[in-house]
Amino acid sequence: KIDGARLWDSLMEMAKIGPGVAGGCNRQTLTDADAEGRALFQRWCEAEGLVMGVDELGTMFMRREGADPELDPVYVGSHLDTQPTGGKYDGVLGVLGGLEIVRTLNALGIRTRRPIVVTNWTNEEGARFAPAMLASGVFAGVIEQGWAEDRTDAKGLRFGDEVARIGWKGDETVGARKMHSFFELHIEQGPILEAEGAEIGVVTHGQGLRWIQCTVTGRASHTGSTPMAMRRNAGRGMAQIIELVHEIAMKNQPDAVGAVGHAEVFPNSRNIIPERAVFTVDLRSHRLDVLEEMVAELLERAPKLCEALGVRFEHEMAGQFDPPAFDETCVGMIRAATERLGYSHRDIVSGAGHDACWINRVAPTAMVMVPCVGGLSHNEAEEITPEWAEKGTNVLLHAVIEAAEV
Amino acid sequence: KIDGARLWDSLMEMAKIGPGVAGGCNRQTLTDADAEGRALFQRWCEAEGLVMGVDELGTMFMRREGADPELDPVYVGSHLDTQPTGGKYDGVLGVLGGLEIVRTLNALGIRTRRPIVVTNWTNEEGARFAPAMLASGVFAGVIEQGWAEDRTDAKGLRFGDEVARIGWKGDETVGARKMHSFFELHIEQGPILEAEGAEIGVVTHGQGLRWIQCTVTGRASHTGSTPMAMRRNAGRGMAQIIELVHEIAMKNQPDAVGAVGHAEVFPNSRNIIPERAVFTVDLRSHRLDVLEEMVAELLERAPKLCEALGVRFEHEMAGQFDPPAFDETCVGMIRAATERLGYSHRDIVSGAGHDACWINRVAPTAMVMVPCVGGLSHNEAEEITPEWAEKGTNVLLHAVIEAAEV
Ligand SMILES: NC(=O)NCCC(=O)O
Ligand SMILES: NC(=O)NCCC(=O)O
Repeated sequence: KIDGARLWDSLMEMAKIGPGVAGGCNRQTLTDADAEGRALFQRWCEAEGLVMGVDELGTMFMRREGADPELDPVYVGSHLDTQPTGGKYDGVLGVLGGLEIVRTLNALGIRTRRPIVVTNWTNEEGARFAPAMLASGVFAGVIEQGWAEDRTDAKGLRFGDEVARIGWKGDETVGARKMHSFFELHIEQGPILEAEGAEIGVVTHGQGLRWIQCTVTGRASHTGSTPMAMRRNAGRGMAQIIELVHEIAMKNQPDAVGAVGHAEVFPNSRNIIPERAVFTVDLRSHRLDVLEEMVAELLERAPKLCEALGVRFEHEMAGQFDPPAFDETCVGMIRAATERLGYSHRDIVSGAGHDACWINRVAPTAMVMVPCVGGLSHNEAEEITPEWAEKGTNVLLHAVIEAAEV
Repeated sequence: KIDGARLWDSLMEMAKIGPGVAGGCNRQTLTDADAEGRALFQRWCEAEGLVMGVDELGTMFMRREGADPELDPVYVGSHLDTQPTGGKYDGVLGVLGGLEIVRTLNALGIRTRRPIVVTNWTNEEGARFAPAMLASGVFAGVIEQGWAEDRTDAKGLRFGDEVARIGWKGDETVGARKMHSFFELHIEQGPILEAEGAEIGVVTHGQGLRWIQCTVTGRASHTGSTPMAMRRNAGRGMAQIIELVHEIAMKNQPDAVGAVGHAEVFPNSRNIIPERAVFTVDLRSHRLDVLEEMVAELLERAPKLCEALGVRFEHEMAGQFDPPAFDETCVGMIRAATERLGYSHRDIVSGAGHDACWINRVAPTAMVMVPCVGGLSHNEAEEITPEWAEKGTNVLLHAVIEAAEV
């Protein structure tokens, strides 16, 4: 079993880097805080004898040699980047849980046949650079590397420039590594496990996602002197589409969710009718047919709403993945480990996207989830208990040992 | 009569300072561009022998001495600041029209009994610092000076600090000057004059305004893993209120207008349910009873909409003025000048707020309006013809000569 106190200490240490304003973290990808978090993780790993590789997108691979170095390694990990107002555990638990496994194996003097590689994927959150899970998407061959490097943040800074600027552009070709399997430990970010008193979620599937970035264009004019009938108010188009997204998601209960989290109007002046509104619709479902129907409904109705307002609707896809089904053998290892350890558990569908969703395309993959208080995540108040962290990491340890063979 | 070509040249010169991105201007108040525009205006005025006074809020007063220096001067002017995506004429025509009057009187060697003061009021637009017409509001004793100096922009910079930083904090006590009368020339910013083929609008009244800055507070959580029923989405509260504002304005046709031009969500990440939305409702009417009823309806219904969404509604007033009725004698001078010059005209209600609306409280005041193409303003594409500019300034010249006495 792993050392829960040691794991918790590391979580708390990492949380000090890129502190938030309300007890959580703001360690967005490829910022100076991200570089500092990476360096701390590197020091911890090297103290355990791990050997680092870094790929061209900055993803970190920390390798513990196996008895048979020729065998494909077992990979574990998640991401150290956070939302601008993120929690201390989202992603971090999966990376530091991987480190804790290595520390445990080292302390016990256990050698696995296969190497074990602890991974920190770059830009999982997608907050600074859309889409989410960007580096793992390139690794899995689903996203084109040059396109990924050209993503820009709100200030117009390029992903490719920023990874170099913070000193974490490595020389490894992205996706060159061969994996025996990949295991990701993550907090649930939803309320199901806690509500049902399950200590462990065995993740069998995930929701698919569509990020549809919409631009509504009207005409800037004076809020006071423009007659109501002459207005072409892009803000009203946005308002109606925000409500339309909710309506579409509600119609597909309980198989779907939908919301708009990113929304801006231009020029954003109190006495100017908005000329333009730019916002991103987030639609998800674990059923591909439902997901596609929702997108079709949105793209049919939104332009009509806009036409009635005298404004123009345009859209582009800012991120997408289909609902993943995880590898049955790997999922079985998670479930078996949970049962062996005597933890209460249930099968669960991941509501969020994870690096595991992409890696699942190129290697047998599974995820283990632990509850989070009130289902709250992407909020600085995100909380878990040390016990949940410990139990989740024990499950990860046992599954990895089985996969890596002792 | 004034020199229309000289006036137009000056308008085009000024428009080069703080150029916009689409042919208009971005010369927001108390920016470096504003300082540059002020310096150019100062040079032009001093070349005509005017003497400058600047008050503590940066308002510029350029004085042409009268035959009887003891008499209260006649004031003319408007503002040189623009919206972030503003036009070349909104405000500028009124200031440079005042300068053109002085140039004409100088060229003709006409001396008026009363001094004439051409004025550039600081922060009329209210785009960078709310509310609009800030310096003239303090001058008129309606807004408290310390409160005005404490207004902050989106970056948190204080009005009081910025006026000093750009070097335009003067030493005159705000509001110390006594005025015989105040005349403001302005573009209509609406479609009425052009549509009716009237060259001149004789402004008898103005609309009153309420800026209600609203904050809707929900809870940040994950867009993917938060069940629909658990969401407290501040963005939906904003969306519904944007539509509510439109509904309330439409109900009061043709006596009112309403819109939301400023809107932001936080933390503004694609996969976070908005925790908070901050936006400003702009409601206007030339009838005080209608204006007050609309505000009451908004403040009754918005909290209920929000309650139904599980989010909290709060508001504060970010600017307000009651519908002004201009001075009958001054309005009569404008009308008489228009008729004497043989221009087509009609009485008009100002849809926008103007410095004249505040000064009207402390001095006999009137406004003259000229058409603008398509009624478009607060847009870089704002346009007027040189002929409209010339005719409006001729009306101003004749009214000012009558008020200042030859
Ligand atoms: N786990 C997580 O929050 N991932 C971000 C990608 C998503 O929005 O699902
Ligand atoms: N004239 C003008 O655009 N003034 C700004 C104040 C307002 O919003 O009416």
